[in-house]
Amino acid sequence: MAKQLWKPGTMIYPLPAVLVSCGDVQRGYNIITIAWVGTICTEPPLCYISVRPERYSYGLIEASGEYVINLTTRALAFAVDWCGVKSGREVDKFKELNLTPQKASIVSAPLIAESPLNIECRVREIMPLGSHAMFISEVVATHAEERWINPRTGAFELSRAEPICYSHGRYFPLGRMLGTFGYSVRKKKKPPLPGGGGRKSKRL
Amino acid sequence: MAKQLWKPGTMIYPLPAVLVSCGDVQRGYNIITIAWVGTICTEPPLCYISVRPERYSYGLIEASGEYVINLTTRALAFAVDWCGVKSGREVDKFKELNLTPQKASIVSAPLIAESPLNIECRVREIMPLGSHAMFISEVVATHAEERWINPRTGAFELSRAEPICYSHGRYFPLGRMLGTFGYSVRKKKKPPLPGGGGRKSKRL
Repeated sequence: MAKQLWKPGTMIYPLPAVLVSCGDVQRGYNIITIAWVGTICTEPPLCYISVRPERYSYGLIEASGEYVINLTTRALAFAVDWCGVKSGREVDKFKELNLTPQKASIVSAPLIAESPLNIECRVREIMPLGSHAMFISEVVATHAEERWINPRTGAFELSRAEPICYSHGRYFPLGRMLGTFGYSVRKKKKPPLPGGGGRKSKRL
Repeated sequence: MAKQLWKPGTMIYPLPAVLVSCGDVQRGYNIITIAWVGTICTEPPLCYISVRPERYSYGLIEASGEYVINLTTRALAFAVDWCGVKSGREVDKFKELNLTPQKASIVSAPLIAESPLNIECRVREIMPLGSHAMFISEVVATHAEERWINPRTGAFELSRAEPICYSHGRYFPLGRMLGTFGYSVRKKKKPPLPGGGGRKSKRL
């Protein structure tokens, strides 16, 4: 396992590649693709996005203090890439991509209707860090697309919506599930009999 | 696209599931699995992890102000799950999992040799948020496993190492690449001839 020592860089991957919608009716809507995004606290639910101040969306989010994180899927991969390259100063991204702005429940920014899960966020603090500023934010509401909710369990099954992630400049869908949380310590229901008499249980 | 309005929650997925190694020779080493992790600034390169104060690793990281983010792979999936369930108060995770602590270049915490990429971090600020505290950190060095570096381009090709991610309590490998950054606006090299005379170029 020989390794090369590299200078510091941004190497945490794979990451979500989300579409962040922002703006309001007066200022107009915009969409920006963000990979510098994540959860920072479970209770209360807090998250962040980091944005370059020169991006058009920066001013919109700074002005309203609100935005929506829209999870992305294979069907949205083109939009994810395009919204990361184009500027809202020049194009109406909702219109050009034929995406549907949908009314949020609390914030003024729109949801993207085509996203399977929308997370309404309210900015608590803007932390300038250098090339990017971090918007530390409260999650104030979430919207889950009904078709991905298991009617029996009530669970939201994002994997059925074919979510995508971003890794070193490439977009990927997810592959076949490897295991569920806790599988490494879960007791097998039918352990093999001692002395080799039982069938070997299949390893996860 | 009917949606259900849900109360606020932590729904940003898929996320990286990294192994964070911490501690030092005096206090002993530990490993904790973290999904509340990400990049918060490109220049300077800054990242964060969020950790519950009651976790054993919290005190180790608080005391030394240092830790290492180790990216994970299919081969490390069992360790990822196990280190998220077990406590370093009761077990020596390096020993139990047969993982190899490797000397870092700057910080006192060890690298996990079996990880394809190790990111040495130094804590800049601890921000208490509720259930979790966010460790805002500087990336001070990275170590890339040579076998995943393309000798021709010098690029680190994480996808060949079979990275995994975490989504709603499940671990997944990545599927087949969908496109590279900028593909949505890249000019095709051989566009079809006007008038329908050319072959249709394959859409990404």
